[in-house]
Amino acid sequence: MAIELAEYLLRRVRECGVRSIHGVPGDFNLVSLDQVERCGLQWVGNCNELNASFAADGYARVSGISALMTVIGVGELPALSGIAGAYAEHVPVIHIVGQPSRRVQADRLCVHHTLGNGDFSVFAKMTAVVSVVAVTLDDPHTAPDLIDKAIHQCWLQSRPVVLFLPSDTVQSPVDGQKLSSRLNLSFQNDQDEETRLVDKILHDIQHSKNPVLLVGGHGTRHDVFEDVLELIQLLQLPTFIAPTGQGIINEETPFYKGLYVGEYSAPCISRIVESSDLIISIGHIQSDLSTAGFSGKIESERMISLQRTNTTLRGSPYNLFLKGVLRRLITQWTVSSTFAHVDQECSLEKRDKDTCSPRMLCSLLKIRQTFLQKLTSLPILSLRKRQVVKHAWLWPTLGSWLRHGDIVLAETGTSSFGIWETSFPTNAILISQYLWGSIGYTVGACQGAAQAARDCFGNQKRTILFIGDGSLQFGCQELSTILRLGLTPIVFVICNNGYTTERLIHGWQEKYNDIQNWQYRQLPAAFGAPARAYRTYVIQTQAQLQNLLSNRKFNDCSVFQLVELYMPQEDAPETMKKIAQGLKKQNVRS
Amino acid sequence: MAIELAEYLLRRVRECGVRSIHGVPGDFNLVSLDQVERCGLQWVGNCNELNASFAADGYARVSGISALMTVIGVGELPALSGIAGAYAEHVPVIHIVGQPSRRVQADRLCVHHTLGNGDFSVFAKMTAVVSVVAVTLDDPHTAPDLIDKAIHQCWLQSRPVVLFLPSDTVQSPVDGQKLSSRLNLSFQNDQDEETRLVDKILHDIQHSKNPVLLVGGHGTRHDVFEDVLELIQLLQLPTFIAPTGQGIINEETPFYKGLYVGEYSAPCISRIVESSDLIISIGHIQSDLSTAGFSGKIESERMISLQRTNTTLRGSPYNLFLKGVLRRLITQWTVSSTFAHVDQECSLEKRDKDTCSPRMLCSLLKIRQTFLQKLTSLPILSLRKRQVVKHAWLWPTLGSWLRHGDIVLAETGTSSFGIWETSFPTNAILISQYLWGSIGYTVGACQGAAQAARDCFGNQKRTILFIGDGSLQFGCQELSTILRLGLTPIVFVICNNGYTTERLIHGWQEKYNDIQNWQYRQLPAAFGAPARAYRTYVIQTQAQLQNLLSNRKFNDCSVFQLVELYMPQEDAPETMKKIAQGLKKQNVRS
Repeated sequence: MAIELAEYLLRRVRECGVRSIHGVPGDFNLVSLDQVERCGLQWVGNCNELNASFAADGYARVSGISALMTVIGVGELPALSGIAGAYAEHVPVIHIVGQPSRRVQADRLCVHHTLGNGDFSVFAKMTAVVSVVAVTLDDPHTAPDLIDKAIHQCWLQSRPVVLFLPSDTVQSPVDGQKLSSRLNLSFQNDQDEETRLVDKILHDIQHSKNPVLLVGGHGTRHDVFEDVLELIQLLQLPTFIAPTGQGIINEETPFYKGLYVGEYSAPCISRIVESSDLIISIGHIQSDLSTAGFSGKIESERMISLQRTNTTLRGSPYNLFLKGVLRRLITQWTVSSTFAHVDQECSLEKRDKDTCSPRMLCSLLKIRQTFLQKLTSLPILSLRKRQVVKHAWLWPTLGSWLRHGDIVLAETGTSSFGIWETSFPTNAILISQYLWGSIGYTVGACQGAAQAARDCFGNQKRTILFIGDGSLQFGCQELSTILRLGLTPIVFVICNNGYTTERLIHGWQEKYNDIQNWQYRQLPAAFGAPARAYRTYVIQTQAQLQNLLSNRKFNDCSVFQLVELYMPQEDAPETMKKIAQGLKKQNVRS
Repeated sequence: MAIELAEYLLRRVRECGVRSIHGVPGDFNLVSLDQVERCGLQWVGNCNELNASFAADGYARVSGISALMTVIGVGELPALSGIAGAYAEHVPVIHIVGQPSRRVQADRLCVHHTLGNGDFSVFAKMTAVVSVVAVTLDDPHTAPDLIDKAIHQCWLQSRPVVLFLPSDTVQSPVDGQKLSSRLNLSFQNDQDEETRLVDKILHDIQHSKNPVLLVGGHGTRHDVFEDVLELIQLLQLPTFIAPTGQGIINEETPFYKGLYVGEYSAPCISRIVESSDLIISIGHIQSDLSTAGFSGKIESERMISLQRTNTTLRGSPYNLFLKGVLRRLITQWTVSSTFAHVDQECSLEKRDKDTCSPRMLCSLLKIRQTFLQKLTSLPILSLRKRQVVKHAWLWPTLGSWLRHGDIVLAETGTSSFGIWETSFPTNAILISQYLWGSIGYTVGACQGAAQAARDCFGNQKRTILFIGDGSLQFGCQELSTILRLGLTPIVFVICNNGYTTERLIHGWQEKYNDIQNWQYRQLPAAFGAPARAYRTYVIQTQAQLQNLLSNRKFNDCSVFQLVELYMPQEDAPETMKKIAQGLKKQNVRS
């Protein structure tokens, strides 16, 4: 049975788990859009492609995979930053770019949305650089296979692929029969190579004095998440998380030891990781931000780094899919493999108490509940009644408010560094870019994540965004999309008059780090939302925030909520101040 | 005398005519930003780089040249669409991209804003493709020369150049003495080649039966504008404008014949152009949009096409700068060159009256004033009291309202096609993308154009934007920048529930062409503007619009003004309907 090419494509997109497609309509993708609903998908319809690309990234981080539709040039290029971010951070996005017809391209016509020079490949080449597969669906006979293979690679490698769809092939008939066989999403590892690697890993663990696990979030959530958890549970090694790994492990797990970010870590955490003779990392990219300016960078000789598509064992590379390595490690880790490693308890020393952040102490002492109860208890509250909200208080406090399954977005800057002080509840997801670090990313990502939460979990999960004022302005219109779709995230806008991260690096008082101060609480109305569809709050003091966080209606998340959270311009998380100093030095070092 | 590299760069930027720099701060350009004010420049500070790139384009279209500062990856990629548009449409933008230090790049460190793979050239390669010069300022000794050469090419070719500035070279000492010699902005044409071409052009004009001029706006405003006007005045050929050429010629000029856009033109205009044996075009790119779906495409055998950096004479290319060709044409066009060509009067035939648009009739009959007076006269007004605003009425009406020197932005879509019906006053500038055609372009471009108007002309010129609701949403936050800078454009938001252009091409009733309907008039307050800093209007009828257009305060432009202009969803300019049908066909033709 013949079906339209676009139908084939979108049915496959639906089959691999996407339920809502992000993007912006344009003349070269309109006919494809007719197929969206017919294939059981929802069209999101973002305000621009820059936000749409971030939204697709956010959607994929919650649902496992996502799709984005743009058009050549004017749509494709604004989406490039989101696609590059997804590529850098191992997020699987199926990007479909509507192009002019094959005839127009062959005739090299001077059509709109191009450079006018007859070269239609110029943008495709840019997009291809940040995609693991780039194919043009210009032949209906080969298209189904190319589609299947592209989605397969997107799934396996957990990175973007791009499919270019000329406008005249959208409705070309293709063999619909192929849809009766399921998409192949399986991987194939070289079995000998896999055996060699896993044997070595097991051998190394057994022969190491004090091995530890370090878990990150790059490519570990999608498809392999259960395997990661199973391995952690089996190994029972002292286990640390990298910044991207927040929320992956239940922090109550006995062998969970805390967040490792180099010299920023609690001293006893640094001691353990830095004295370990074997660090096994999973899905951790050692960027300057995720290692506190490389102070937490681990030398390759002490490290086995398991990544989505390869493993590096003490410097030697193995091209093997993570899932295979994990499954085999789990299978081969038998009781006989158990070894008597010393479970290194974090012993708290006097000086640690002076230098440790609340969260670190918290996880070390395993007194999270008690600590947080104390933090939120009334005597303290009354003391804080008129106190402004500062980072040192905010982020640990939030830990007691977050709950099981929350989806938390932390914009690069004060939020992404501040969140290191926040205890994560079980099964929470943190969405933050510790490598790509685009300002404004989380506005779009919040829309995508909230949509994915609804698609995958009904309305059971809360989506919560922490973002600075400058970053919100970058992508503000996607709040309109959130409101149009009836999504109900909580958005905390940290109002501190501009680019605090930049101020800390350079230009503390400079005007170029200032912004126009908006009335953020007026945005939902301006964006056309009826009064019943949203609630806004202005928070100036710790007491006000405490009240809000304990407010039942607020926690119900039945409507979109925006919190203007005023904080002093000169305040910042301690860790960010340190990292900013590191970045400043890094910038001028010749 | 040694000065900092960034100072050298920005002094040169100032010297070539830029007074305000667009962009967004980021950690890799902060130290450079310290030099902005010191070098006599204003820092604009946009909300995101996508808008900033469009703003820089808009600034250059008014002031002649512009500059944009971004950072690697996360800033550079969102700016790519604006840069590609400027490249396509011949707009000179000096793009400065802050990069990590040379040390970080040499060591291939995994730093933020990169893919993490140690490859720092990946984004630069993308940007270079849409820039006529791309250089890295990694050597303070060669940097001044490279800067001078890049700005020179930007000026000459009227297209973007990009300068990559590693963070550690920003403050490197360079030879400041070089600044005492002025920037070289002169061009060099091969004199023999120029002679050959100009002789041929003159010969062809003299030996043609009915030559005509066709003037567009690509690369003709910057640096050569006076020459273009002088040549037109000298030749006194029947002169037509292409869509991009609106505003270039005084429409009262006797030999001005009107707008030529193929089958959309008034029949008698089509007759003249299509029967001409020699069409000399200047700065006209024959894109699908500017030729009404190629119906107005002129075959190369009948055409001499003068472009910014080359001329094509009946198919033969000459690589010569426009300015040289124009100057020599002007010099060699002596009284003796005068020939007795028949000045083809547009003779209006009966059937023309039935098919012609008001503006066409207008320019044909040379009765603009009378016609417009009639249009705006009271008896008609009373009739129109309760009539909704429709495109057929709107655009001709605006012609009587526009005034000398106005800067008019028309967003791609209803506005860019509707504006064909609007008579342009003398010395007006039209800003619209008839090739790149990015939705949302004119929001940023409006900010840039308004800033350039202030920088170049004080507050004497009005900046007026016509934009659809969907397009405004694309880049809405730049209204905040407009308000922060105290710029005072008039923004007409055509509220018709979504993407009308797309509807006409495909999906007339489809939800994917709908948008969230905003309360646009609430945006200035939400964007933090005090009540005294703006005025907003809601227009539902023709009478209301007539009143507004004749309101003195409105025309004063002393504050930012936003007009919500409600128009029926199903209404569109006739020409756009036709072109959309053409595009629809073009999309499916195999």
